[in-house]
Amino acid sequence: MDPLDNRQLQLRDDGRLRHFLTIDGLGRELLTEILDHAESFAGVNERMVKKVPLLRGKVIANLFFENSTRTRTTFELAAKRLSADVVNLNIGASATAKGETLLDTLRNLEAMHCDMFVVRHPSSGAAHFIARHAAPYVSVINAGDGRHAHPTQAMLDVFTIRREKGDFSRLRVAIVGDILHSRVARSQILALNRLRVGELRIVAPRTLIPEEARSLGVHVFHDIHEGLRDVDVIIMLRLQRERMHGARLPSEHEFFQRYGLTGERLALARPDAIVMHPGPINRGVELDSAVADGAQSVILKQVGYGIAVRMAVMSMALGPDAAREAS
Amino acid sequence: MDPLDNRQLQLRDDGRLRHFLTIDGLGRELLTEILDHAESFAGVNERMVKKVPLLRGKVIANLFFENSTRTRTTFELAAKRLSADVVNLNIGASATAKGETLLDTLRNLEAMHCDMFVVRHPSSGAAHFIARHAAPYVSVINAGDGRHAHPTQAMLDVFTIRREKGDFSRLRVAIVGDILHSRVARSQILALNRLRVGELRIVAPRTLIPEEARSLGVHVFHDIHEGLRDVDVIIMLRLQRERMHGARLPSEHEFFQRYGLTGERLALARPDAIVMHPGPINRGVELDSAVADGAQSVILKQVGYGIAVRMAVMSMALGPDAAREAS
Amino acid sequence: MDPLDNRQLQLRDDGRLRHFLTIDGLGRELLTEILDHAESFAGVNERMVKKVPLLRGKVIANLFFENSTRTRTTFELAAKRLSADVVNLNIGASATAKGETLLDTLRNLEAMHCDMFVVRHPSSGAAHFIARHAAPYVSVINAGDGRHAHPTQAMLDVFTIRREKGDFSRLRVAIVGDILHSRVARSQILALNRLRVGELRIVAPRTLIPEEARSLGVHVFHDIHEGLRDVDVIIMLRLQRERMHGARLPSEHEFFQRYGLTGERLALARPDAIVMHPGPINRGVELDSAVADGAQSVILKQVGYGIAVRMAVMSMALGPDAAREAS
Repeated sequence: MDPLDNRQLQLRDDGRLRHFLTIDGLGRELLTEILDHAESFAGVNERMVKKVPLLRGKVIANLFFENSTRTRTTFELAAKRLSADVVNLNIGASATAKGETLLDTLRNLEAMHCDMFVVRHPSSGAAHFIARHAAPYVSVINAGDGRHAHPTQAMLDVFTIRREKGDFSRLRVAIVGDILHSRVARSQILALNRLRVGELRIVAPRTLIPEEARSLGVHVFHDIHEGLRDVDVIIMLRLQRERMHGARLPSEHEFFQRYGLTGERLALARPDAIVMHPGPINRGVELDSAVADGAQSVILKQVGYGIAVRMAVMSMALGPDAAREAS
Repeated sequence: MDPLDNRQLQLRDDGRLRHFLTIDGLGRELLTEILDHAESFAGVNERMVKKVPLLRGKVIANLFFENSTRTRTTFELAAKRLSADVVNLNIGASATAKGETLLDTLRNLEAMHCDMFVVRHPSSGAAHFIARHAAPYVSVINAGDGRHAHPTQAMLDVFTIRREKGDFSRLRVAIVGDILHSRVARSQILALNRLRVGELRIVAPRTLIPEEARSLGVHVFHDIHEGLRDVDVIIMLRLQRERMHGARLPSEHEFFQRYGLTGERLALARPDAIVMHPGPINRGVELDSAVADGAQSVILKQVGYGIAVRMAVMSMALGPDAAREAS
Repeated sequence: MDPLDNRQLQLRDDGRLRHFLTIDGLGRELLTEILDHAESFAGVNERMVKKVPLLRGKVIANLFFENSTRTRTTFELAAKRLSADVVNLNIGASATAKGETLLDTLRNLEAMHCDMFVVRHPSSGAAHFIARHAAPYVSVINAGDGRHAHPTQAMLDVFTIRREKGDFSRLRVAIVGDILHSRVARSQILALNRLRVGELRIVAPRTLIPEEARSLGVHVFHDIHEGLRDVDVIIMLRLQRERMHGARLPSEHEFFQRYGLTGERLALARPDAIVMHPGPINRGVELDSAVADGAQSVILKQVGYGIAVRMAVMSMALGPDAAREAS
């Protein structure tokens, strides 16, 4: 899809956010606005009373066509902290076999005056499809579609980087692992490039790098020792065993041997480098426990920031007043 | 069951609504009161803040012995808009094999100070059974019991008709489809007769019309072309494949050939006739897509009105103050 | 585990409650404080508006590794009446095979700023494990772990006894049934001894009495007729068929013959004795229906008191202000 189409689909006429489906098509200013809003909400999470009344009376429907207690819970908590009402709808992927059925489901939820759909779906493009057919008063947030995009994850990752390391332009970031199958990596690369990161590297075996990699504005490394040298930020990807087809993937053991993050390899990065992972981690597969729990790991901070970032996106998408009050 | 018993069971001594189990036994004034309340709530759904504090502190338990995400969600949203707390209990029908077990479940929920049970059950009479054994401070809403009744669906249907077409006495209404197995049809017929609809028709093959049809005050048609002629309202029933036993039912294809609503057949009705359906629709079985999505279809409006009607019934049943404040 | 360790683990430095895992290690004053708080909340449940704002903005996560709609619902209602936000996480016991995984789950929920975990787990010690590894700002409530403890159940039982029968020191209490496998009995014995009950009896076949029984400060009876004579309180345990291993247990029929509570046996107790049961009851197994539904049964009152007791524990554990406002 064309970035211009993505811009048009996601933004209102006045340039404000309506849907949040992909980083593609969104400008640096808007991404920075999301980060700034999230900053204001990061404080809310530490307050005694963790609620703000921004979305009181709004109804947010979690439409999960793919099971994910963890992601659903972060969106649910974000919505509740904004005082919205939440309905959880776990819909078997089978019900989506016919596009018609999915549309009828949507039309019905719209008719119930839901204001926002948070959509997770195993098929790439599902959130776009829903957004394209949504009623004018409805916002759609993509919570992960197939191998395509997971933009709130990417935003919480760049939020973490900005909070922990500051100015993007001075940073060297490496994304390590199965880039090919990862919607997270795709969204991270777009966000980091848009925010003008100093240098962006991807580190993976040849078989797990997408063909279009060269055009993504990244430096490709196949050797982790070279890839990690002097970086400020290491993002380990999750090995998505359930998303693999065919025999492209090395065994877990072999993967860890070649790409797993150990203390020794971490030492190749800058001494103050941070270690990130979208979770849930597979200890001994993507990284060893000492690194996961070590002083340089910010993996758990990412989780908390994820709620602040989702609060930001939700409140920005649900109308101008919400966005104004929140800032 | 005798209408007088149904009146006594459902109303308080002063005539106000306590349970809402069936249209049977309820007078025209009460049904009209529900419609008028729903009218006031229809506005709430369009407001920026969609909550009213009428049932704050009340606890409403959704007791679903039959799976229905859609119906449960409308009741959940209605309760949340009234500021009630909601607990969802999906109970396998197996647990109800012994009446004792069901009663013990009820007694326990009552002891937890739940104020209202919204009950869906595969057995006809289950909601009555529960209401008859409920503690004095508990209200029961029937959200569909076996083939027996689905009164909130019927009320949202008549609400839709009143909103779209006005005065019932001047209207000709046709209900088309499997009348025999439909709790929705049973409740619609009672409500439309009680509200003194001009003419009520049922349109179905002989095998799908209940024996007592002649005594229901309806005109029976077996030919859809005759049945739809000059009607103001067409209500298509859902083909309840899962509720059928034996071979009474034609194939879906055959059904659509004989009773499906096409544009051609719709043209037999009055030019301003509306098309209704309780949902979820089976496109190409009960009606074709062009009709479902056409200008005369009010199927999605029904869904939104359903929340207003459920808010009305809930607030009327949960005490005099609630009812007074709501009006 | 040593009582001193249990004291240290459960209390803050200033002696206030932090976790509620077991009765063991808690003093009489603290148990009495819980009962007094519960007394103030018992009124809340009967008020028109059943909510108090004590825990507004707090997030309580129900972590149920063992299915229990009933217990989960009482904790959910208690939390909602305190105005907390609740997230329900039903986690298959399989996910806990590795301690690491459980800890990672915890760390993630903590990072989402959950304030309290209500934990039910099939393994004895699971709630302790979680509490020992929890972040400083997190409280853990044990909602039943293996055969070990179920302290909120024990507290609602002693609350019921105090409300119905007054001063513990003048009372003779008999616990009847499968003591060996019962976490409820273990917690009840600790609580009743700590509260200085006049006389505590356990009534069970030799095979269902734990070896350490003699050291528990209870009188052991194998004959129910002797065990019930002149008691003020009869607590029937649930026959936990699913928790049994091996052939220690008599058949249900045989159990009822020897230990089931009939009207005839109840007549051996004091005329104003009360009958208790943690629920859900098995009619005709632990007690016959006439007794369960009879004038001396307080089984359903226990359920309602259970919410008040859980409100007390939750509000006491979540900070000094909460506790102060509630009293």
